[in-house]
Amino acid sequence: MTEPIAPAAGRTADDALFAEACAHARRVAVLASVEAVLGWDEQTMLPRAAGGHRAEQAAALAAIVHRLRTDAVQGERLHALAAGPLASSGSPEQQATIRLLARDFAKQSRLPSRLVEELARTGVEAQQAWMAARAGSSWKMLEPWLDRMFALKREQADCQRPDLDCYDALMDDYEPGGRWRDVATRFEPLRAAIVPLVHACRDSSKQPDDRVFTAATYPVDAQRKFVREVAARIGFDFDRGRLDTTEHPFCTTLGPDDCRITTRWNERSLPTALFGVLHEAGHGLYEQGLRRDWYGLPPGEAASLGIHESQSRLWENMVGRSAPFWEWCLPIARAAFPLPLADADVATVHEALLVVRPSFIRVEADEVTYNLHVMMRFDLERAVIQGDLAVADLPAAWNERFEKDFGMRPPDDAHGVLQDIHWSAGLIGYFPTYTLGNIYAAQLMAAARRRFSSLDDEFAGGRFQTLLTWLREEVHTAGRMLESDPLVERVTGSPVASDWLVQSLRDRYGAAHGL
Amino acid sequence: MTEPIAPAAGRTADDALFAEACAHARRVAVLASVEAVLGWDEQTMLPRAAGGHRAEQAAALAAIVHRLRTDAVQGERLHALAAGPLASSGSPEQQATIRLLARDFAKQSRLPSRLVEELARTGVEAQQAWMAARAGSSWKMLEPWLDRMFALKREQADCQRPDLDCYDALMDDYEPGGRWRDVATRFEPLRAAIVPLVHACRDSSKQPDDRVFTAATYPVDAQRKFVREVAARIGFDFDRGRLDTTEHPFCTTLGPDDCRITTRWNERSLPTALFGVLHEAGHGLYEQGLRRDWYGLPPGEAASLGIHESQSRLWENMVGRSAPFWEWCLPIARAAFPLPLADADVATVHEALLVVRPSFIRVEADEVTYNLHVMMRFDLERAVIQGDLAVADLPAAWNERFEKDFGMRPPDDAHGVLQDIHWSAGLIGYFPTYTLGNIYAAQLMAAARRRFSSLDDEFAGGRFQTLLTWLREEVHTAGRMLESDPLVERVTGSPVASDWLVQSLRDRYGAAHGL
Repeated sequence: MTEPIAPAAGRTADDALFAEACAHARRVAVLASVEAVLGWDEQTMLPRAAGGHRAEQAAALAAIVHRLRTDAVQGERLHALAAGPLASSGSPEQQATIRLLARDFAKQSRLPSRLVEELARTGVEAQQAWMAARAGSSWKMLEPWLDRMFALKREQADCQRPDLDCYDALMDDYEPGGRWRDVATRFEPLRAAIVPLVHACRDSSKQPDDRVFTAATYPVDAQRKFVREVAARIGFDFDRGRLDTTEHPFCTTLGPDDCRITTRWNERSLPTALFGVLHEAGHGLYEQGLRRDWYGLPPGEAASLGIHESQSRLWENMVGRSAPFWEWCLPIARAAFPLPLADADVATVHEALLVVRPSFIRVEADEVTYNLHVMMRFDLERAVIQGDLAVADLPAAWNERFEKDFGMRPPDDAHGVLQDIHWSAGLIGYFPTYTLGNIYAAQLMAAARRRFSSLDDEFAGGRFQTLLTWLREEVHTAGRMLESDPLVERVTGSPVASDWLVQSLRDRYGAAHGL
Repeated sequence: MTEPIAPAAGRTADDALFAEACAHARRVAVLASVEAVLGWDEQTMLPRAAGGHRAEQAAALAAIVHRLRTDAVQGERLHALAAGPLASSGSPEQQATIRLLARDFAKQSRLPSRLVEELARTGVEAQQAWMAARAGSSWKMLEPWLDRMFALKREQADCQRPDLDCYDALMDDYEPGGRWRDVATRFEPLRAAIVPLVHACRDSSKQPDDRVFTAATYPVDAQRKFVREVAARIGFDFDRGRLDTTEHPFCTTLGPDDCRITTRWNERSLPTALFGVLHEAGHGLYEQGLRRDWYGLPPGEAASLGIHESQSRLWENMVGRSAPFWEWCLPIARAAFPLPLADADVATVHEALLVVRPSFIRVEADEVTYNLHVMMRFDLERAVIQGDLAVADLPAAWNERFEKDFGMRPPDDAHGVLQDIHWSAGLIGYFPTYTLGNIYAAQLMAAARRRFSSLDDEFAGGRFQTLLTWLREEVHTAGRMLESDPLVERVTGSPVASDWLVQSLRDRYGAAHGL
């Protein structure tokens, strides 16, 4: 690893201190990346009976990582650096590193070690319970675990940021600086635009026909080969990553050259895996684009989960659901699946990808209704964490809200409150980042289109390098040096707003539904 | 986890100290099991470019585990316990725990932390280099790594057991109490019996015909299903384990309910995967049979690698290569592979498994020549570690010795000195445990047959519970409380000797070759 420090000549005591602080932070990052190995293995490989021991492993390691993160000597280094010359006159990377390491240190130091271990252990155990609960659609199996997890997360919020609203304190882990009132304000016009769009699509006499992707069989082996080819083409580096199978797709990073994505397979629907992989590979491109020389330090870390999601959504929806993309992709798909796609043309395929159809499961939702799924989770989890809703009342509240938003009622809890892993994993305050990501993605893509008029031609030729290079230069290499809003504003030249997302949804889905 | 301590009533200060020492040892075991997760993932899943970071992870974790293992407070506890009443009048488990924890502590304490980290890091890097070197049959790619690794291991031996010969010091990690002169003495009559048996088999006019397993195609998917069924039938619990694919098969334990085995597949040879899986599942049965309530403590640990290997070899060779086993297994195999096995009968199949045919690759060797592979590695690695052979001269020494023992010369280093992972992984002093395992296996199986006259009938009916239960009661639950020789002697009633192995090889392979 190269050291992100000033050259030896002219090095000051402050430089040396900075180097020491960075070395410590990297040691912590290396051990934290072992936690990621445990997590990936837990989700993809763990034998049925091994959950208990995995919880012990996660708790033991979390305690060690926490102790290192709150090491007193590191605290002193950061304190001295904050008062030293680099904090105000160092490079932008150095300034951001000093500021953010100090911020992280303060947050971590307020967390008791016992709580860190309990969160890690309960996270593994609750996720194992979740898998069984969802499989059997049994809310009662999960309820005590969620009760425990929400209580632990409330305790975490109270410890870490007693100055903030409890939900904001948690959301800060995923969207630094985000506040729920601002998020709610930003979601309002989006909701006001989406609900009538969903109704108009539903009521239109023109309905897109998606049978091309659902009326045939797409063998899993051929799907695997096909989606790997697509992921590699947009730039995902399989020498520095993997693709595996899980029920709940995700992307995780086990090290600077080890980014792993997963997908699920549905023989009756090609888009399930294809768009799942475009999405997770979008996350992967961001991770693989982070600055290797700043690994483990803020300039080499992701800005926020919202920005992370903007990258996945951009590739999944803005690229993958565009007609030019299919000019290139359809012949590849046809070679993989000759029979079902023999007669399909680009217009048919493109239209098939623009169906608006309310459904119970978030991860299967279309691009338009998806945000309604997110907003209801944002409201429900906030109500629980703020004490306005009991965990025991979640299923009823879920079904009521779902019926209001979607006009139908989940047939069972597996299609309702049990569908997502997030709450059992302790990811509370995470859901809003999905819709924030959609908002950022549309705004970023609009800026890319203004900057490069050739994008559609390039996509039609299977060339994605211009877009990826721009994202790398503008977004990925910025790391965590800016928070989400300032970053998007700097890249796009406009304050963050949902206007571009609304416009994009109206244009594409309106046209497909003859509106 | 239940606590292996005396009941609360009547607990003494010594009991309390014992409980504390056990709790600490278990914490260490949990973290060491995270190292096993890293190792398994490295062997089975690691992306090509991720080796460098994995080495960092392994080194960082090894340093932490080492610090815990040599914790001064634990040292004081063990010191006090050794002088206390439990050390001489506690249960056998307690006495063994105190004695062996103190022994391990002393060994670990003599190892500098820097060396632990370097061994861990170099182990990962050298294994990555080995994979590339073997793939390209390039000794030059591996040589500097082996040079470094042998030097580190020599340093380890000097630190840990300056009182012992360097090779014995290393072998002690794998075969506690083993001494190379005793091993060499034990190998001598075995070698004296095997060499003429190999010659007699080669020169016989009757040669077993193994075309039934090699003249057809065995599709990998069907093999996977078949070998899982066989492994489950002998008792491997897939709820507490996994089967995956690697070039170099192995068994590793990630936790008390997480034992993972691997195999490789050869479409042109069914025995490759079948006997590979019987072997690794044999290891797995041992691991799954260790005492759960003593997890992380000597009574719940394996006795030695020799005993471990005895379990794998027993299932692979003593059970899997027996005619009664095939009474049960052939119909299962025929259902999986109707075409190649349609006309095969048990006699044909059984004979096909008793071919003696010198070959270059140890893991493909027949049961008779296998021990010659092991003995030459035992001699070569000992010569290097004792300073009588330079690493640079290993390929020539290998080829010369191979030609002497097998009558043929490896066509390249991939078929010679580069074939095994052990040396690059730092496993020096490990090879002799393979042949020790064969010796123990034959002696144990002879005892089992004396004890239960019904075994063959049971195997023919696909029933393996009598044998497994006996092994569990006699061997598995003994843990590490006895060293290999006393354990085998206690179970079989005879001192360890190679007589039973020689007899078994002569009987079975002699008959198949008409001797």
